[in-house]
Amino acid sequence: MAYGPDTLAEATLADVDEVDAYLGRHPVTWLNVDGLGDQDVIARLASRFGLHRLAVEDVTHTGQRAKVEEYPENAFLVLAMVNPGPALELEQLSLFLGDGFVVTFQESRGDCFDPVRKRLREGKGRIRVSGPDYLAYALIDLVIDSYFPEIERQGERLDHLENRILDGRPDRRVVADIHEVKRDLLALRRIAWPARDMLSALLRGESPRVAADTKIYLRDVHDHAVQVIDLLETYRELGASLMESYLSSVSNRMNEVVKVLTIISTIFMPLTFIAGVYGMNFDPDASPWNMPELRWWLGYPLVLALMAVVAGCMVLWFWRRGWLRR
Amino acid sequence: MAYGPDTLAEATLADVDEVDAYLGRHPVTWLNVDGLGDQDVIARLASRFGLHRLAVEDVTHTGQRAKVEEYPENAFLVLAMVNPGPALELEQLSLFLGDGFVVTFQESRGDCFDPVRKRLREGKGRIRVSGPDYLAYALIDLVIDSYFPEIERQGERLDHLENRILDGRPDRRVVADIHEVKRDLLALRRIAWPARDMLSALLRGESPRVAADTKIYLRDVHDHAVQVIDLLETYRELGASLMESYLSSVSNRMNEVVKVLTIISTIFMPLTFIAGVYGMNFDPDASPWNMPELRWWLGYPLVLALMAVVAGCMVLWFWRRGWLRR
Amino acid sequence: MAYGPDTLAEATLADVDEVDAYLGRHPVTWLNVDGLGDQDVIARLASRFGLHRLAVEDVTHTGQRAKVEEYPENAFLVLAMVNPGPALELEQLSLFLGDGFVVTFQESRGDCFDPVRKRLREGKGRIRVSGPDYLAYALIDLVIDSYFPEIERQGERLDHLENRILDGRPDRRVVADIHEVKRDLLALRRIAWPARDMLSALLRGESPRVAADTKIYLRDVHDHAVQVIDLLETYRELGASLMESYLSSVSNRMNEVVKVLTIISTIFMPLTFIAGVYGMNFDPDASPWNMPELRWWLGYPLVLALMAVVAGCMVLWFWRRGWLRR
Amino acid sequence: MAYGPDTLAEATLADVDEVDAYLGRHPVTWLNVDGLGDQDVIARLASRFGLHRLAVEDVTHTGQRAKVEEYPENAFLVLAMVNPGPALELEQLSLFLGDGFVVTFQESRGDCFDPVRKRLREGKGRIRVSGPDYLAYALIDLVIDSYFPEIERQGERLDHLENRILDGRPDRRVVADIHEVKRDLLALRRIAWPARDMLSALLRGESPRVAADTKIYLRDVHDHAVQVIDLLETYRELGASLMESYLSSVSNRMNEVVKVLTIISTIFMPLTFIAGVYGMNFDPDASPWNMPELRWWLGYPLVLALMAVVAGCMVLWFWRRGWLRR
Amino acid sequence: MAYGPDTLAEATLADVDEVDAYLGRHPVTWLNVDGLGDQDVIARLASRFGLHRLAVEDVTHTGQRAKVEEYPENAFLVLAMVNPGPALELEQLSLFLGDGFVVTFQESRGDCFDPVRKRLREGKGRIRVSGPDYLAYALIDLVIDSYFPEIERQGERLDHLENRILDGRPDRRVVADIHEVKRDLLALRRIAWPARDMLSALLRGESPRVAADTKIYLRDVHDHAVQVIDLLETYRELGASLMESYLSSVSNRMNEVVKVLTIISTIFMPLTFIAGVYGMNFDPDASPWNMPELRWWLGYPLVLALMAVVAGCMVLWFWRRGWLRR
Repeated sequence: MAYGPDTLAEATLADVDEVDAYLGRHPVTWLNVDGLGDQDVIARLASRFGLHRLAVEDVTHTGQRAKVEEYPENAFLVLAMVNPGPALELEQLSLFLGDGFVVTFQESRGDCFDPVRKRLREGKGRIRVSGPDYLAYALIDLVIDSYFPEIERQGERLDHLENRILDGRPDRRVVADIHEVKRDLLALRRIAWPARDMLSALLRGESPRVAADTKIYLRDVHDHAVQVIDLLETYRELGASLMESYLSSVSNRMNEVVKVLTIISTIFMPLTFIAGVYGMNFDPDASPWNMPELRWWLGYPLVLALMAVVAGCMVLWFWRRGWLRR
Repeated sequence: MAYGPDTLAEATLADVDEVDAYLGRHPVTWLNVDGLGDQDVIARLASRFGLHRLAVEDVTHTGQRAKVEEYPENAFLVLAMVNPGPALELEQLSLFLGDGFVVTFQESRGDCFDPVRKRLREGKGRIRVSGPDYLAYALIDLVIDSYFPEIERQGERLDHLENRILDGRPDRRVVADIHEVKRDLLALRRIAWPARDMLSALLRGESPRVAADTKIYLRDVHDHAVQVIDLLETYRELGASLMESYLSSVSNRMNEVVKVLTIISTIFMPLTFIAGVYGMNFDPDASPWNMPELRWWLGYPLVLALMAVVAGCMVLWFWRRGWLRR
Repeated sequence: MAYGPDTLAEATLADVDEVDAYLGRHPVTWLNVDGLGDQDVIARLASRFGLHRLAVEDVTHTGQRAKVEEYPENAFLVLAMVNPGPALELEQLSLFLGDGFVVTFQESRGDCFDPVRKRLREGKGRIRVSGPDYLAYALIDLVIDSYFPEIERQGERLDHLENRILDGRPDRRVVADIHEVKRDLLALRRIAWPARDMLSALLRGESPRVAADTKIYLRDVHDHAVQVIDLLETYRELGASLMESYLSSVSNRMNEVVKVLTIISTIFMPLTFIAGVYGMNFDPDASPWNMPELRWWLGYPLVLALMAVVAGCMVLWFWRRGWLRR
Repeated sequence: MAYGPDTLAEATLADVDEVDAYLGRHPVTWLNVDGLGDQDVIARLASRFGLHRLAVEDVTHTGQRAKVEEYPENAFLVLAMVNPGPALELEQLSLFLGDGFVVTFQESRGDCFDPVRKRLREGKGRIRVSGPDYLAYALIDLVIDSYFPEIERQGERLDHLENRILDGRPDRRVVADIHEVKRDLLALRRIAWPARDMLSALLRGESPRVAADTKIYLRDVHDHAVQVIDLLETYRELGASLMESYLSSVSNRMNEVVKVLTIISTIFMPLTFIAGVYGMNFDPDASPWNMPELRWWLGYPLVLALMAVVAGCMVLWFWRRGWLRR
Repeated sequence: MAYGPDTLAEATLADVDEVDAYLGRHPVTWLNVDGLGDQDVIARLASRFGLHRLAVEDVTHTGQRAKVEEYPENAFLVLAMVNPGPALELEQLSLFLGDGFVVTFQESRGDCFDPVRKRLREGKGRIRVSGPDYLAYALIDLVIDSYFPEIERQGERLDHLENRILDGRPDRRVVADIHEVKRDLLALRRIAWPARDMLSALLRGESPRVAADTKIYLRDVHDHAVQVIDLLETYRELGASLMESYLSSVSNRMNEVVKVLTIISTIFMPLTFIAGVYGMNFDPDASPWNMPELRWWLGYPLVLALMAVVAGCMVLWFWRRGWLRR
């Protein structure tokens, strides 16, 4: 994709050499490479655009930290994009900013750059009249903004977990879910902090390739990156607090269960004991001392009454200790 | 609201153009916009006051971090206000400080600026004789001061929770309450730290729009922001300590419950066993070895005595282990 | 209290105007105001000594962070003092250091400045021959030193708690006590950190009011403040470690209790079952298969032997698992 | 191993003096010493290469922090290498970078420098045409890259543990395994942080021995070191989160066990009690009040029905409390 | 002890004035004062060597933070030494470094300076030909190195605890032991951090009393101090991880105990209930519905078989839940 204030050309290139048809003929040329599989193509692009060997290595070894590196011929930026989807999926974006061109490398086809393409095609806003640094800003802006939906998704998962823990009855999946949220937040943090550092470096840097005008816009992206980090830290603390709440809810339910066990045992054990005593087979005929109660006129009702009294005392005692109140 | 040392005019404007009647005719004009719904009005204000596109974007995308941005035409400040009420409710205040005017945007109608309005109307203090930077200071001061009642409310909730946990009998709501306090404190922290950074930037900044005189006042606001953060950190640690105390109180009560269960079981199980033995139906007629105790003269009293001895030993043992003492 | 190398005058003033009798006539005048109730007196003092409006506000709104503020006319210091007593009690000291005078404001009557008063009266040491900056140093030194007894008291409470937890049998008050120590340490930390920052600012500052000579002494106070913070952090970590130890001791005792329950249940349940079996009323007359054991010659002794064997096996099993050893 | 753009010589030396045959005759000489046992050899090397006494001491006292020290004659670097293998094994690499030579000391024979040796032998890339600083860079690069497989191994162990904890049934080895991973991560962290600091110092340093060109490469190594640290911190947090998940899974299983106990006890205790009551031996002949139920026509079926009702109520109650649902 | 390149004199002084016999006659005089009891001696030494009042105060008020203070006449260093022994014991070393002399104050007699004394007596190495700054370095080096055996001792204690917790059966002393290790590590940390800061200050400082040459050596000591801190932090984290492991092992054992209880109860409760049912005394003569089983031909064997089936089902159920496998 090459463009100038008045011109715009867009094409999918089949071969590296076709680049010549655009490079230099338009004020700004944007070459976007999807997929890093073909080492040969990358090597030829590197020699054509004057990309440094170390930078090209970083392009192909994905999973780099976000960073900006100034080479004599161009500036090299690495950044992680968040692909939209149900699971957290990261992709490395490598961006070379040179005189009159921007070259971007992505791991796979889909990206979040459609708004920029649309603005380029429609020629609205500053983008067509600005240099490649503004294009780079616009791309970085979209990358950083791609973090927000993911963070919001994590925030909603935390909200959902919070409801499950505090209001309803948490099940065992909660632990795995909290752990997963934590892991995703850690992964996001691992890309957000370097992204912020990279933007600080860009802002502080005296790079001749970034116009002062564009820096005002980069400052805005930097603010967004800081906001991302703020949110991540807040969510991490919320996650830790949720885990604590969950553990305490587990303890509480255990307490409740044990309390039920204790109440039942404490009431029925003495009763069973009393029943056991009068189930003994001592022979009342052998001695007047041997269980004369068995032949009393009111023996059985009296024993039942004794049991009722014992049970009543126990219940009363539990009541006064507050165990029967929820 | 426009004013000078000797003049004061106040009106609710129906249309953007009415601003011209005030702007420039008074030394200071303060335009306060309630509600961000009408994009058209905001766009016309932006062009009239020379507000930067990025700044206007930040006005409408609420939830921004507190920050100060210097543009050639004016300075742009974002800050979160705490609305009074039973639940923590945040609102974004956007403030443009230009030559001779202050424009503020709020999300909704109610605000905490009445003291400033009153001072303006009454003409007391420095506010009427000072420039727009002093008005901006006065507004920021009120915003920061609006954090204190909310923090105090959280502190009182923590005190209340502390009493419930340490003195009385904590119920299960305690966990949810602590979690809620933590979440509110995190939210406050997320607005207080950037507010402090913003004030530091204002103090350090060489902005020509803030007079050295006003900086002494801003230093005071900065101290308040630092105090807010101190309080928040202290309350967060208190909250964590309370959670620990609660968990340990849950453990303690569990311990108590299990102890009761153990004491009851340990006393009655041997007794029930003894009763069970003498409830066996071995036939004393079949053999002299078969439960001759059943026909002893003192069989029953002896067994009851044995039971009493066993129970007594158990109780003694528990006493010596300190389980019966609370 | 006003003094010079050779002169010393001391009086309790009834009215603000009496200050004139001392101010200017002695090289150094120290005015100490106990109690902040009378707004009128403070306002008159402020105008007489040229105290800034914001500083005076800070004097009356107690609970300020420790800080130093340079005004054209004087320097303003705020610091928290620890009042001696059984409970942690803080008091704000506001100190104005001007040309030839020191004005201090306290919330209540008692203070820790008697050593300075004594040195002034006795004319020993450097204090009478030095300027107001040295007096300010001497006062700050006493304030910082007032933190140490309080910190030591917390350290002793921690030692005491440690003994209760690790050696004896901790009771339930322990949690509340640890929580209280933590709260006090947090409160102390909230005053100690700003105090250190204030002293750093004084040391770094280029204030013409603090002589280079006095800075050597202030460096010493600064070291004390750092020592206070070191102690506080150490005690906080000790407190956290104690809480952990306590929780684990609770778990251990629970373990012990549950073990007793399990041992007793596991021994007596099978025995009671055996007794129950032979307590069944199957009629040996109805069939030779119906409990012929009841009429065996050695039926009863054999069952008792079986019970002994079962119990012995259980005990042996517990022994081998190490449950019977403490 | 000595080499220049066009020359390459490689030999295993038997004696220190043989070094002279290479030193100075080739642009770069690399002397690699395996094993630190022979103090005499090291002393002779030190004097020949002009190594500082303190540096030589650090060579023999292994377990040093990674650092770089500039001496007038040469630069001294210490770094920890990770030996490949099933357990974490660290080895100290000491590297002297002088004019025209690199001397490396290792604790034992095996190392990770074969790729450099191969590139030297094949004469590919920049290594043969560059100075000793590039050789040093290449060695450091390999050392830092040797951390990655170890970190990945720890990451896989954590993944494995995560599966065991969250999906399957964790056994008791899990705690020991998590503890071991934590210990290994701590050990790696203890070598990775100083390595990063060392590389920062090399980058910032104005050492004349490191060409500006080589610094671009060192920056790349520095980025790798930062990535190592990022990974370590992430894994540490994951480990902590796993431990929490494990503890909560233990609590959960305990809860489940206690629930089973409670359900069984709560159902059978009342039933056993009822059976016990009708096992009492009160004599129905002695009084019409004495257990007339025993002679009722439907006495036994009614009691069985009562038991069924009691058990059914209990089960219903448990069902409504959600205890029977998993 | 006074010495120069060619001279060495060593004596135990009885009186302060005897110092004159050495001071100034040798290039370097080292005066070591054991014990701080005699205020008079210290005061006389202070006046003879020109020691500042504040520094002398710090000498006698032991427990100071490590620090270095530059006075016009000399440099004053404070440092904590670790005395060898079974328990952690700290001692304050105060060191004055002046022109041609080093004065050290210790709290008690024993110290770790014998290696320096030996090197002085034997005249080996640089120590006799260097100035007092090198002597000070040598002493500081020994002090910092005295931390290592203590840290190693704590490391061994942690290893020992680790074995007890993870392999064998931890007893209750473990908690107290971990707490003690933590306390000792905290105490060491409280002396190690200031020591490092002091050494940084010495290295950064532009003190004319420390030769550039000596700074190379001080850098080495600084590295050792940093290593001490690294080790301390690592051990602290290991200690925290051990505590967690211990708590989880307690939970695990509790789990095991409760599982045994549950298995036994769940098997025997239904059996006991069945036995209880057939122990009821319903009269089979009164009605054909009353326990006809008692007179069945195979009643007893059938009941025993029922019991076996019930127990078998329970065991099978436990087996399938994995409770019987360890």
